[in-house]
Amino acid sequence: MSDLQAIDRYLQETQAQSLETLKSLLRIPSVSADPAYAGDMTRAADSVASALKAAGLEVEMIETDGPPLVYAQSAPVPGKPVALVYGHYDVQPPDPLELWETPPFEPTERNGNLYARGATDDKGQMLTHVESVSAWAKQIGELPLQVKFMIEGEEEMGSEQLDAYLKKPEAKEKLACDVIVISDSGQYSKGQPAITYGLRGIAYFEIHFHGPKQDLHSGSFGGAVNNPANALSKFLASIIDDDGIIQIPGFYDSVKPLEQVERDAWAKLDFNEQQFMDGLGVEGLTGESGYSTLERRWARPTYDVHGLWSGYQGEGSKTIVPAHAAAKFSFRLVPNQTPAEIKVLVEKFVANNTPTGIRSELVDLHGGPGVVVDPNSPFVSAASKAVETAFGNPPVLIREGGSIPIVADMVDLLGADCLLLGWGLEDDGMHSPNEKFNIADFYRGIRASAHLWQHLAS
Amino acid sequence: MSDLQAIDRYLQETQAQSLETLKSLLRIPSVSADPAYAGDMTRAADSVASALKAAGLEVEMIETDGPPLVYAQSAPVPGKPVALVYGHYDVQPPDPLELWETPPFEPTERNGNLYARGATDDKGQMLTHVESVSAWAKQIGELPLQVKFMIEGEEEMGSEQLDAYLKKPEAKEKLACDVIVISDSGQYSKGQPAITYGLRGIAYFEIHFHGPKQDLHSGSFGGAVNNPANALSKFLASIIDDDGIIQIPGFYDSVKPLEQVERDAWAKLDFNEQQFMDGLGVEGLTGESGYSTLERRWARPTYDVHGLWSGYQGEGSKTIVPAHAAAKFSFRLVPNQTPAEIKVLVEKFVANNTPTGIRSELVDLHGGPGVVVDPNSPFVSAASKAVETAFGNPPVLIREGGSIPIVADMVDLLGADCLLLGWGLEDDGMHSPNEKFNIADFYRGIRASAHLWQHLAS
Repeated sequence: MSDLQAIDRYLQETQAQSLETLKSLLRIPSVSADPAYAGDMTRAADSVASALKAAGLEVEMIETDGPPLVYAQSAPVPGKPVALVYGHYDVQPPDPLELWETPPFEPTERNGNLYARGATDDKGQMLTHVESVSAWAKQIGELPLQVKFMIEGEEEMGSEQLDAYLKKPEAKEKLACDVIVISDSGQYSKGQPAITYGLRGIAYFEIHFHGPKQDLHSGSFGGAVNNPANALSKFLASIIDDDGIIQIPGFYDSVKPLEQVERDAWAKLDFNEQQFMDGLGVEGLTGESGYSTLERRWARPTYDVHGLWSGYQGEGSKTIVPAHAAAKFSFRLVPNQTPAEIKVLVEKFVANNTPTGIRSELVDLHGGPGVVVDPNSPFVSAASKAVETAFGNPPVLIREGGSIPIVADMVDLLGADCLLLGWGLEDDGMHSPNEKFNIADFYRGIRASAHLWQHLAS
Repeated sequence: MSDLQAIDRYLQETQAQSLETLKSLLRIPSVSADPAYAGDMTRAADSVASALKAAGLEVEMIETDGPPLVYAQSAPVPGKPVALVYGHYDVQPPDPLELWETPPFEPTERNGNLYARGATDDKGQMLTHVESVSAWAKQIGELPLQVKFMIEGEEEMGSEQLDAYLKKPEAKEKLACDVIVISDSGQYSKGQPAITYGLRGIAYFEIHFHGPKQDLHSGSFGGAVNNPANALSKFLASIIDDDGIIQIPGFYDSVKPLEQVERDAWAKLDFNEQQFMDGLGVEGLTGESGYSTLERRWARPTYDVHGLWSGYQGEGSKTIVPAHAAAKFSFRLVPNQTPAEIKVLVEKFVANNTPTGIRSELVDLHGGPGVVVDPNSPFVSAASKAVETAFGNPPVLIREGGSIPIVADMVDLLGADCLLLGWGLEDDGMHSPNEKFNIADFYRGIRASAHLWQHLAS
């Protein structure tokens, strides 16, 4: 029996155990955005560290000014490449809570899926690599190459601590690797696995418009005093035009145009617009004119408002000119836009578009550049082989609209290549209520990861 | 000693007692907009009824599908006009609570003012008439004319129950009167009393924009799916242009233009724009081009957003395309616009401006027309005399930007004239945190009211 055959059999036998490990991690509400969950962040880090120790790795908890970084490594294997798994143990906030069918932190099996906040993003996907390493350690006794892990706790809010750590002299040596392996994205569609070779970046802001020093009676003052809620609507609307073109001067200056070869390849992918709309429950699509839906989602910059608040949100009517209005909004960026450059443009736009009677305040919440790697590398070939075995289908090569800002930084710092192997599905509800992970995909992901170590090594 | 001299002396001696009556009414959180306070609405109605009974009136509690109407009347006085006092015992919601220096429902004296939600709007002002009637009853034994009271509990949310009651056959007989007296507005400025001869109307709506069936990951879906928060900003912004002109087709069709004589009279009023801005804490004013600040506030239609909510409002960043966004907004109306006509125009505008991929839902929250009465009536002369005695200064004749929708309905139904006698001040914070009523103005209001009954009768 070959190593891979032995591993396959072992994985088959230990599926229930892997699922329990995932469930216990999902029970910890590690919401990084909300300081109320600080204790749970530590518990989640400890839980990941235990899983890595149980997989036979040497684990180091790196303390930071925020949630700790969990680092781990297997023994060096001279002459073989080094792989670094990157993942995160933090999750998005679970609200709106009332839309969850079962509580977000009580993982529940239904119809072959495991429902919980973080099921796919990223606890479930990240654990596939921990479990595959564990299988090698327990079944074969050693890994065919050195695997390192860097699992952080602030991906959902901008990876500030990992970013700071990467700037330390020790980081470059400790994380030195040939290829970074990340499972924090999706398959192309159910049954059609994918390898993702590009991600968008992001520049995320919060803006506050301050008007009168307190709420005013809209009867007595309306019409003469600039209303921050009126003014903010106008400001937010002015950022984009009817053709979906962002109106901030200079915004597109650094955008690397899409290659014709990519547009041609994506046009050939199986994509049913009606099914896509039905899945989302919308009756029409919009976006930047001149681009297809896949191009808009994967490779063009966007502008989205994520939160709005002002004045009276309760029942009935309250007739005020609110003193304050605020919004959270972000731009998805594409190569070669940088968040730093976009921040300067947005600051200037805010300064030029704050109307009379309003004081504006812009907060830069987080940002990260996009990344695109070579889709023809030997690492991609190795991954394709592993994925095809586990999923029964060769993967297609795609880009992804989401952002893992820290990936671009690590690729830069370490001079490494990067493999984005997504085991999720489009309807998994990452960042939405009723997030889930298909349990069979969880097992397939573990198997693909186990095979990947072998193929990368040979 | 004349009746008025006796009354004046009595009022002087019973000031502390009147203030205690007001405080005990202010302690009841009668917030009509929030169903959680239903019990307090009943308590407030009972408290008003007790005060009217103590003033020697015959009181009737009129039950409705909402908070009760409190009706009262003194004995008929043949050959004399009948006055109907209209007021309300409900108050605006007190939030944002954290901005109150002392709790909104614990009336607190500071610097000659009484701070509490409802202090001016309208508990304090309404009580001046109850206290004046009480003074006549206790000091003289009878009133010089018949005074009726109609005190309702839904003014802050559109007077739905009183509106329904006015449609009943009995209403016209029971409320029959020559003049309606209302104290729910303000003096022109500190020390300069005013009689208000016009009010704006209102048409108040709530709008919901529904997009995808649940929040989506803005990385995976942003740029291809219409974002309800983006779309709502655009919709709200499209309602008004940069010159402050409302863009809803037909909106201005019924607007009665301002008379030149009014514009001339208001231009002569003492109004310091810089002081006005300093008082509000703003560095500039905006509004409809071609009109002065007083004209914009008193006699031109307006558009204000009162509340906005969508997506994530918590700490940090959440990268979603929110499933839903909503706003509360209203238009102040001027003669001869009607809320019914505006509602039709707004519905059409919403239908024509709901973009692809969004389902809109418009809720008509409440409305009422504006009202303008003859500033040269004998009732105005009687009131001027009473106000001048109590405040030491003859009142100026002004209009007001606020709306008391039910006033226009009562004027219509009863064929009565209408006296708007405001004892409040511009900085009283009606509808704002730290609402207050100047205690000396409370006493002056009671005295003016007591004198008014005499002057109306002679």
